[in-house]
Amino acid sequence: MERVYNFSAGPSMLPVPVLEQAQKEMLCYGNTGMSVMEMSHRSKDYEDIIYGAEALLRELMGISDNYEVLFLQGGASTQFAAIPLNLFKNKKADYVITGQWAKKAAAEAARYGDVNIVASSADKTFTYIPKLDKSTFSKDADYFYITANNTIYGTRYTQFPDTGDIPLVADISSNIMSEVMDVNKFGILYAGAQKNVGPAGLTIVIIRKDLIGNALDICPNMLNYKTHADARSMFNTPPCYAIYISKLVFEWIKGMGGVSQLQKINEEKAGILYDFLDESKMFRGTVVKEDRSLMNVPFVTDDEELNAKFIKEAKENGFVNLKGHRTVGGMRASIYNAMPLEGVKKLVEFMKKFESENK
Amino acid sequence: MERVYNFSAGPSMLPVPVLEQAQKEMLCYGNTGMSVMEMSHRSKDYEDIIYGAEALLRELMGISDNYEVLFLQGGASTQFAAIPLNLFKNKKADYVITGQWAKKAAAEAARYGDVNIVASSADKTFTYIPKLDKSTFSKDADYFYITANNTIYGTRYTQFPDTGDIPLVADISSNIMSEVMDVNKFGILYAGAQKNVGPAGLTIVIIRKDLIGNALDICPNMLNYKTHADARSMFNTPPCYAIYISKLVFEWIKGMGGVSQLQKINEEKAGILYDFLDESKMFRGTVVKEDRSLMNVPFVTDDEELNAKFIKEAKENGFVNLKGHRTVGGMRASIYNAMPLEGVKKLVEFMKKFESENK
Repeated sequence: MERVYNFSAGPSMLPVPVLEQAQKEMLCYGNTGMSVMEMSHRSKDYEDIIYGAEALLRELMGISDNYEVLFLQGGASTQFAAIPLNLFKNKKADYVITGQWAKKAAAEAARYGDVNIVASSADKTFTYIPKLDKSTFSKDADYFYITANNTIYGTRYTQFPDTGDIPLVADISSNIMSEVMDVNKFGILYAGAQKNVGPAGLTIVIIRKDLIGNALDICPNMLNYKTHADARSMFNTPPCYAIYISKLVFEWIKGMGGVSQLQKINEEKAGILYDFLDESKMFRGTVVKEDRSLMNVPFVTDDEELNAKFIKEAKENGFVNLKGHRTVGGMRASIYNAMPLEGVKKLVEFMKKFESENK
Repeated sequence: MERVYNFSAGPSMLPVPVLEQAQKEMLCYGNTGMSVMEMSHRSKDYEDIIYGAEALLRELMGISDNYEVLFLQGGASTQFAAIPLNLFKNKKADYVITGQWAKKAAAEAARYGDVNIVASSADKTFTYIPKLDKSTFSKDADYFYITANNTIYGTRYTQFPDTGDIPLVADISSNIMSEVMDVNKFGILYAGAQKNVGPAGLTIVIIRKDLIGNALDICPNMLNYKTHADARSMFNTPPCYAIYISKLVFEWIKGMGGVSQLQKINEEKAGILYDFLDESKMFRGTVVKEDRSLMNVPFVTDDEELNAKFIKEAKENGFVNLKGHRTVGGMRASIYNAMPLEGVKKLVEFMKKFESENK
């Protein structure tokens, strides 16, 4: 069986060299005589893995000592609660609603305090990033929340809002390390690993140190950032294997030339696909041009049956998971870091062929 | 490099056939053309994995339809909060303190209500399971909490308390599927996977259905059992790869003849080690005989230097992670399901040799 081009929105493709190394080390890691999965998390060998991963992440993203890097569990959905439970003092926060994930995050925060929706793109099925008017920002918000890249709808912020002294919190689950970001602009950056980093089951939280230590009394110990910061992500057993795979991915990113180099490749990949969508008479992108994601590219034809035929034939030709999210319909190609340029080129070739055959 | 006998308390040994199959399938699972780590959790292939794992677990543990089986994240430490947040109505619970984990669980519950410590074995460094006096049980407790097997101290309940109508909640992280248990006696059974099931990053919760749906208002959505029961553990992306490995372990357990067969082997393994400890002039077990764990066997010599020498030489001979927990000292051999009988026999041979050489 040959490997396919996997356009899944997440979990998603991993670099082949990473999988090959994991395969090689499955029964015996280095000279330990055991799999990483069998290793005590308190062992020197495992500490080298987790703290090696942290050091690489800091290097690749330019994370200063003003920030803690936490390797947690529970996915972005757990952060939806952890963020208000840790950051609420005035119990007030601003949210920009650019899709389902922002909506869910805001709904969870609203259970613990006041949520001010400063803007939303719900009116046009989240096909754009709303322009923000600073005069609508709360003066006494504990934080300002955005979803930096919207996996389902294929939008992204190309400029981040200036929130002054109010900490900017961003969900970067679907674009972490796909483009250069200035971490210093943020109070919290966080991401589920299963798109651009590694396997599902790991959540990375990058948090400015001064935001740690003021959790609400009702905050469960395991959702309190202080618990994990004090124990350097080893308060309890971390998701050891997911962290190991992520370290291999970080090494691969470094070998590729770092995040800035990957951003260039990602811009090239997305450019090829968007250029074709703009010139095609059959396919078109669903997102306004200036807010298009580099990672998630939703597109449609004007005919539901044709969409279904395309998805089916694409699959037969080794391009899988192109079906769009059920709330958007049509197609979506997720082209994360691990999707090779060649995969996008071949997809576009196939789309051209399909278009000419189905005029 | 040869594989070692790994006596780690967790994460710990996995069956070699499981690792070999995972290795084989690392780059391509079945005819999917991708790794399980790269697979959409919403795909048919992945549903077969997660629900196949659930079906096997139900079969192996004899779990009836009165119970939900949830595959969660966050470890036992997250359950320490989830249990009171879901079960508290009168905001009162009984706890038996048989070690650090029970203590931590009780401390977290005490943040949300009244905790009644019905018994504790702290007076003798948790080297026994306290006798329980029913007259000390709270009449209006929302649940009664125990740690079924104490990883650090090497004790286990051989009989579970009869709590009548009050749900019995048990942490079975270190003895799940190592011995036959009557699930119907419990309100909740839960376990971190990283000892007897699979890799770290997966928590299994087996919960009686009538206990779901009454979480406190302050309970984070992701800690609410209803969230996960309603979505069959797919509310958000589950720890996909850890569940896949666990399924392979369940298949291995079934192939071994099921839990009752493993219990026999575990009794034989533990018996060999305890028999030697009872006859040795140098080594002795630290736990009262009637409460000895089948999974975790702490032992000491009367000389700290000799302990250190033993641990060092054992390691050189391929018996690793025998150092006891820092709060107990000495040695501890964790002999979970995946530790072969041969591993225990060879360890005892080595201990005999060490004893004769160090008289």
